[in-house]
Amino acid sequence: MSKVLTGRKENYAQWYNDLVIKADLAENSSVRGCMVIKPNGYAIWEKIQAELDKMFKATGHSNAYFPLFIPKSFFSREASHVEEFAKECAVVTHYRLKKDPEGKGIIVDPDAKLEEELIIRPTSETIIWNTYKNWIQSYRDLPLLINQWANVVRWEMRTRLFLRTTEFLWQEGHTAHATREEAIEETLKIIDLYADFAENFMAMPVIKGTKTESERFAGAIETYAIEALMQDGKALQSGTSHFLGQNFAKAFDVTFTDKTGKLDWVWATSWGVSTRLMGALVMAHSDDDGLIIPPKLAPVQVVIIPIYKNNHELARITEVANQIKSNLESTGISVKYDDRDTRKPGWKFAEYELKGVPVRLAIGPRDLENRTVEVVRRDKLSKEIIQQDKVIEHVKALLVDIQQNIFQTALKRKKDNTYYVDDYEEFKQIVEGDGGFIYAHWDGTSETELKIKEETKATIRCIPVNNKPEKGKCIYTGKPSTQRVIFAKAY
Amino acid sequence: MSKVLTGRKENYAQWYNDLVIKADLAENSSVRGCMVIKPNGYAIWEKIQAELDKMFKATGHSNAYFPLFIPKSFFSREASHVEEFAKECAVVTHYRLKKDPEGKGIIVDPDAKLEEELIIRPTSETIIWNTYKNWIQSYRDLPLLINQWANVVRWEMRTRLFLRTTEFLWQEGHTAHATREEAIEETLKIIDLYADFAENFMAMPVIKGTKTESERFAGAIETYAIEALMQDGKALQSGTSHFLGQNFAKAFDVTFTDKTGKLDWVWATSWGVSTRLMGALVMAHSDDDGLIIPPKLAPVQVVIIPIYKNNHELARITEVANQIKSNLESTGISVKYDDRDTRKPGWKFAEYELKGVPVRLAIGPRDLENRTVEVVRRDKLSKEIIQQDKVIEHVKALLVDIQQNIFQTALKRKKDNTYYVDDYEEFKQIVEGDGGFIYAHWDGTSETELKIKEETKATIRCIPVNNKPEKGKCIYTGKPSTQRVIFAKAY
Repeated sequence: MSKVLTGRKENYAQWYNDLVIKADLAENSSVRGCMVIKPNGYAIWEKIQAELDKMFKATGHSNAYFPLFIPKSFFSREASHVEEFAKECAVVTHYRLKKDPEGKGIIVDPDAKLEEELIIRPTSETIIWNTYKNWIQSYRDLPLLINQWANVVRWEMRTRLFLRTTEFLWQEGHTAHATREEAIEETLKIIDLYADFAENFMAMPVIKGTKTESERFAGAIETYAIEALMQDGKALQSGTSHFLGQNFAKAFDVTFTDKTGKLDWVWATSWGVSTRLMGALVMAHSDDDGLIIPPKLAPVQVVIIPIYKNNHELARITEVANQIKSNLESTGISVKYDDRDTRKPGWKFAEYELKGVPVRLAIGPRDLENRTVEVVRRDKLSKEIIQQDKVIEHVKALLVDIQQNIFQTALKRKKDNTYYVDDYEEFKQIVEGDGGFIYAHWDGTSETELKIKEETKATIRCIPVNNKPEKGKCIYTGKPSTQRVIFAKAY
Repeated sequence: MSKVLTGRKENYAQWYNDLVIKADLAENSSVRGCMVIKPNGYAIWEKIQAELDKMFKATGHSNAYFPLFIPKSFFSREASHVEEFAKECAVVTHYRLKKDPEGKGIIVDPDAKLEEELIIRPTSETIIWNTYKNWIQSYRDLPLLINQWANVVRWEMRTRLFLRTTEFLWQEGHTAHATREEAIEETLKIIDLYADFAENFMAMPVIKGTKTESERFAGAIETYAIEALMQDGKALQSGTSHFLGQNFAKAFDVTFTDKTGKLDWVWATSWGVSTRLMGALVMAHSDDDGLIIPPKLAPVQVVIIPIYKNNHELARITEVANQIKSNLESTGISVKYDDRDTRKPGWKFAEYELKGVPVRLAIGPRDLENRTVEVVRRDKLSKEIIQQDKVIEHVKALLVDIQQNIFQTALKRKKDNTYYVDDYEEFKQIVEGDGGFIYAHWDGTSETELKIKEETKATIRCIPVNNKPEKGKCIYTGKPSTQRVIFAKAY
């Protein structure tokens, strides 16, 4: 079978696009910049959602739902927020179509113009804080720990499946607190939760850190992010958690009476991850043969393929396969038995490699004789022959091992592509070469950050939390610096 | 404690609205016609989603996600579809805001006008069938069994929380089949699934039937619906399943090659239930004290409330309560222990009655002495004293009993309010009186249906499936009729 994907070395961007399309994860829709998430892709997103949702609930959060529409005037309330989001939003101006009186199909009915335009939410701080105003009077109403799973729209000019689309799916947490300390604690709790999820479910090592002023969320006092390294040496911001101070409370006049009877503005956080994680998952692990999905997020963890010449053989294999399937399923493993007669085994092997099923079992006539099963793990594509009576235990252990191996591989890649650089020429060479995370000194100014970005396209991904102080000189200006920050080109 | 709700007899509509608000299910947002679904309400919706999603997957359906936006031109493709939905849609015309050059906040940027307007999906047949065109070539690609959980927008002029809102949440299934028979089978399978869910989870008896031409989905050949009776004698359509024939395949040019090599249009179904079910759930069972939620859909099934005079007592009660809680939870029952010291027990009792928690346990000093627990069931508000060592089994059985009792109560109400009427004056009296389902003969014409609607506000809810043939005369025109259909006023 000829390779269906462009090689990563040949053209990484093309490889990514090929893979998303060929593995049936998503495709571009006929609406500019919007994607269709296909069943194969959506099943992974559902696993991501389910695990995150469990983690949110275990930390005391509840889900709710707020309107898709935000009145235009809400946007102007928080000054830095409007600057950022007004540039790229979908605006609803009318609420009816009608037949064209000149007979050319249907047109927007000019009589159905809205008094105030509605913006499709690019993020929901404004509509939510306008609602919280009515929910919060006293310290007894706090904390308010609410999350929303929703679609949002940002009018992007250059889009890429999952990584940057006009409409995307996400969760956005919006919490309200009585004190600054509690809000900061929540901000940190969530960035830790995201890092935990990224590493333990997505098998993707991340660095937690704060954003510089120029990369901060519009309206935040501090933005924490998790940053992951992709195989092409570029960073991908995979989740953010914002300490919003009292900015939105002030913008929407949300106050509360504390235990002593004193009135104060409410403290806020917001945080989110999106279908962008799907892009991260694909790019972090997959290879030239297709997807590599960590077992914990794989909708199908094991596929069983029969190899047979006639119906009699198929019947005998099916009996064994169904027994293994039901035994695996009873331990909580998801299994697919693919006995379609419209495709050959070789075709199926390639198909499930492409789609990233972590473990493939094949059973043929010789296996019937020897009471064995052929076991292939997707991450290494290595093969073993296992006795049928040992296969359940073997597969259980194998799935754990694959999850760990994928993480270790990504961890090693990150380590191998992390540099401590003190010389700007070397810095540029790395950025223009294979990329990676570069720890370098920086003078702390937005001007320097911008100049480095203009000259190299590298940006400061974050200032790692618990960063150790280190005296040095800014790699660009030579001015004094107290710590290294992480530079990389980024998605 | 004074009653917080308007009585049902006093003003049923006001009772409903009071209840939705006071039980913290939802509220109106600052965007006209759009609601905020609050955590208490959303938790029930999540239970509804989870159960339905399981049922969809068990019948071979997968989830996917299609764009929020539909290009205006797609609407014109299916003639009856555009007639229905163009009247009430939100139209995106621009993709950017900018600062008002006259300094008055922000305005829509006239330079950012879309070439073709985008409609916020009121339903997704058009965008989905435009996508299916690329997914379907051969009979091997069929059937395509896809569901989407999404928000949709219909610009309603008169809205009511859950029952009719401009934006609502729903699921929409869109399936594609090789034959007419298979598509009809799917349509029926889903209406059966909806009826099963309504009766066995929502504890709400329903009648399955087909819609008359005037009530049919725009673009459907046949619409099946489940209809439930509310406590005020009005019907509520709770789910629909449409056989679309080849209408959308023709509109979007979706053909396939069958096994014999012949080209044909693809056969389609679509089906959906929405957050309207939340309204049905509230109205079908609740009383003047608050919500009555069937245990299978109650986010919290059991609440435990301590009654104590001092911290020493509280500590001893808490020990017992936590033991009961963890024992109940280990059998899969969700439990909340409310030991807040900011509220008195009586306040809590009323609160959980209002919010519909199916079982309330109270533990006081005397219970400590006697090793007992006070158990109150929400549906009957009846009280029992149960030995602590019997409480787990008792509560388990009680939850089953409550689920059944709620259903039986609703079933009896439906029976008591179902009439077979042959006289138009009697018909009008019932409709204008307490309402209910009226089985009556009808001459089969839209004209008669419309006249009855104009004169009485009653509409034909459905023609029941497996309706028994019966010769009679139309209640309005006296013309011959072969079967009775169901009339009622409806939400």
